[in-house]
Amino acid sequence: MKQFLDLADFSRDQVDDLVGLARRLQQSPEPRALAGKILGLLFMNPSLRTLASFQAGMMRLGGTSFVVTPGQGTWQFETRLGAVMNGGAAEHVREAIPVLSSYCDALGVRSFAEGKDLAADLAETQFLAMAGLCEKPFVNMESAVNHPCQALADWKTMDDLDVPRTGKFVLSWVHHPRALPLAVPAATVHMAAQRGMEVVVLRPDGYALPDAIMNRARAAAATSGGTVSETSDRDTALAGASVLYAKEWGSAACYGDTEAEARLREPLSGWQVSDDWFGPARPDCHFMHCLPVRRNVAVADEVLDGPRSRVVMEAANRMTVQMAVLYRLLKGYSE
Amino acid sequence: MKQFLDLADFSRDQVDDLVGLARRLQQSPEPRALAGKILGLLFMNPSLRTLASFQAGMMRLGGTSFVVTPGQGTWQFETRLGAVMNGGAAEHVREAIPVLSSYCDALGVRSFAEGKDLAADLAETQFLAMAGLCEKPFVNMESAVNHPCQALADWKTMDDLDVPRTGKFVLSWVHHPRALPLAVPAATVHMAAQRGMEVVVLRPDGYALPDAIMNRARAAAATSGGTVSETSDRDTALAGASVLYAKEWGSAACYGDTEAEARLREPLSGWQVSDDWFGPARPDCHFMHCLPVRRNVAVADEVLDGPRSRVVMEAANRMTVQMAVLYRLLKGYSE
Amino acid sequence: MKQFLDLADFSRDQVDDLVGLARRLQQSPEPRALAGKILGLLFMNPSLRTLASFQAGMMRLGGTSFVVTPGQGTWQFETRLGAVMNGGAAEHVREAIPVLSSYCDALGVRSFAEGKDLAADLAETQFLAMAGLCEKPFVNMESAVNHPCQALADWKTMDDLDVPRTGKFVLSWVHHPRALPLAVPAATVHMAAQRGMEVVVLRPDGYALPDAIMNRARAAAATSGGTVSETSDRDTALAGASVLYAKEWGSAACYGDTEAEARLREPLSGWQVSDDWFGPARPDCHFMHCLPVRRNVAVADEVLDGPRSRVVMEAANRMTVQMAVLYRLLKGYSE
Repeated sequence: MKQFLDLADFSRDQVDDLVGLARRLQQSPEPRALAGKILGLLFMNPSLRTLASFQAGMMRLGGTSFVVTPGQGTWQFETRLGAVMNGGAAEHVREAIPVLSSYCDALGVRSFAEGKDLAADLAETQFLAMAGLCEKPFVNMESAVNHPCQALADWKTMDDLDVPRTGKFVLSWVHHPRALPLAVPAATVHMAAQRGMEVVVLRPDGYALPDAIMNRARAAAATSGGTVSETSDRDTALAGASVLYAKEWGSAACYGDTEAEARLREPLSGWQVSDDWFGPARPDCHFMHCLPVRRNVAVADEVLDGPRSRVVMEAANRMTVQMAVLYRLLKGYSE
Repeated sequence: MKQFLDLADFSRDQVDDLVGLARRLQQSPEPRALAGKILGLLFMNPSLRTLASFQAGMMRLGGTSFVVTPGQGTWQFETRLGAVMNGGAAEHVREAIPVLSSYCDALGVRSFAEGKDLAADLAETQFLAMAGLCEKPFVNMESAVNHPCQALADWKTMDDLDVPRTGKFVLSWVHHPRALPLAVPAATVHMAAQRGMEVVVLRPDGYALPDAIMNRARAAAATSGGTVSETSDRDTALAGASVLYAKEWGSAACYGDTEAEARLREPLSGWQVSDDWFGPARPDCHFMHCLPVRRNVAVADEVLDGPRSRVVMEAANRMTVQMAVLYRLLKGYSE
Repeated sequence: MKQFLDLADFSRDQVDDLVGLARRLQQSPEPRALAGKILGLLFMNPSLRTLASFQAGMMRLGGTSFVVTPGQGTWQFETRLGAVMNGGAAEHVREAIPVLSSYCDALGVRSFAEGKDLAADLAETQFLAMAGLCEKPFVNMESAVNHPCQALADWKTMDDLDVPRTGKFVLSWVHHPRALPLAVPAATVHMAAQRGMEVVVLRPDGYALPDAIMNRARAAAATSGGTVSETSDRDTALAGASVLYAKEWGSAACYGDTEAEARLREPLSGWQVSDDWFGPARPDCHFMHCLPVRRNVAVADEVLDGPRSRVVMEAANRMTVQMAVLYRLLKGYSE
């Protein structure tokens, strides 16, 4: 295992191996497993959980890390091939990535979607170019349309909660003041499909996920025995649900058009998860969200502070699964 | 010991234990005492000494740490209960604190006063709410009206200098371009009273410390055998003083009213400590300040560069006492 | 060895010792050599390589480090003696440096030229004042007119590449949207002269390096057996060159005059290194640059992505030589 770019690159057995290793390291810590190993962390975008959990995870395995945040103590990076760099960016990733990878034993990179050209973002053009520049093990800490660490943490969280592999999983769009990237919804719908679940994407008109994302999830479901459907009807979606996973995202139809997006989402403030959403769901239905979450905009306090909420558990599992990923990347399968 | 929120929570014997442990760790380093332990550091506000000394202190005990600074690589945090989060803050401390505490073995938080509502700031409403959200040992790295790490460092500094426990301690207001929080003056007056000293608060009219702060210090003095008084007369205050502790703070009378504050402080630029302030003091009177200090505005170069200044020693003691605090929080009383 | 301020402070034998130690540590890692040692890193200016390579280098020797970046989580620093600090800067380096040095075992500082007063910048007035405030081993991580870590990395890179000590070394000015400091060109011309090379500074009219810099390099050449000359004729400069080292810098003639500088450089966009520059050079002529580099402004893609480019190797050597410097500073010559 040399790269952790996409959970779709791994079979269910391989995912189970990572979740199992994460659990084993929780029960039987190995505080010297990665002694002497250095993780470089490059954040093109803000982070809380990822920033803290990767550092803490390395520490818990005896390794160390350094953080680079372009624009904060470092100049801005250029990512476009062939760019004439006479603007704000002083360094190109074609230098920055090989240089940083020369200092560390593995490199994690976060680089969100540009949000202008949907096809380019869906193709992960920039992110894959960066990954290709790195000679060391490489970790996707959230790219244009993927967030495999979050997906793996959510998979483990459902395992920890004994959510059936064939349970009903509802990914619901929720309100937010502005359009957010497609990375988490894309990773989540695929993860639940890959896990074998009955996946329903609940979203208002105009907020369907792009075909490329839905088709990819449907292909995963075809392999795993799950299903993927979508609806704008809340009660239909939630009937018998084991999990309601809320997420904010921008409209693919208005991609890059801020004003049209604002008009489209303006009447949708009712898409805020409250306790009454759970009426048609199973009594033990869990509430999940990757965080950060805007309270009383995307999700009501009563849900986040109520007994269904698993959001802190999901975040805590970011560290546990990332430790397993780093262990496999840096130590392989010898144990 | 599960929390280090306020020096007032500790008896003099307990403070002496911490100072003694700090000294012992200086003389007999224990470079593996906290091996495998992780300290999370959350800074809502700028820091120099705290940022560097907590990290270095953990390293000197064999532990590690990570730093999170909302707004710098991380989004802004919301702290108000029930907030509708449609503004700049993307994450609530109700998620952020439990999540961060899941990654570490102890969490330090800095969160200054809002500076709008004096009663709310004096009650430490927000800070205590954050501390209550953390299941791990918790350290106050400066809150609305407290700074126990600074107070403990200053206590040790006076012990190191053999300043008598019953000596005269003058806390003097000094000039600054704008109103600063009450955290350090509140912590300092209480610390000196708790130590048993003859405490005098020297301040111009309009800059009396709030009754809640003064009464709390008087109660500590009643227990320790010290006294607490206040005056606007410099010579009276400094007569026979063993310590002059300078600090900038805002007027409680104009709390949150920037313009009234500016008018009030405008004529007070003479409140800048210079060598001639020390005329009535003891010949060996020490000069103290928590730093950062604006040279030639709050304190003249001649004092900061002169033989009375202990400001670097105080700052160096931030690390030594914090190591003792972390040791007690993470290792308890076994040694 | 107590300070690493300037490569000119070291004899060629001492430089060879550092390069040799760097190489030995690459071949035979000593992962516990600096166990328990703490490096403080103070960045007054942005950084990528320096930030990451110093942290990673300490980690590879078993030590640790902390980073302070004034203005990012820390207030701005004042550096002028006697300043009345009623502006933006809240802390003076006269406090900050001794305080930070009390927490660590060695301190690295980056502080670029102010770019207003050439004589003051050439004299390194501010930087030497900071170095003088530090009681611990001190490292120059780039000052007004020096960058000894880069110079040492470049020396080792040429040794690694078997570039003859008497080879022809061309330092060429290249275009950039604005005037950059003189630190790297000053350090580079001196390093190549000290190494004994035939040094040619190639620059357009108006961009001659200050006499103080050129004379210092000529003195080094006189000792080493090298030579130092300058020209504005590209073909003359590059005839028989073993190395073309490109760097952007501001005109000493317009120092501090942004508008005059802009007018002077406006017609010079042709000073962008492309493959055809290498015609008169040796077939094996290497291309070097300290990074960051603006692609297709200072240097064309074809050169940076071509077989002559050593820019990533130079950056990788930042870590290897800094490990040797830290080793000598913190462990001395015992091995």
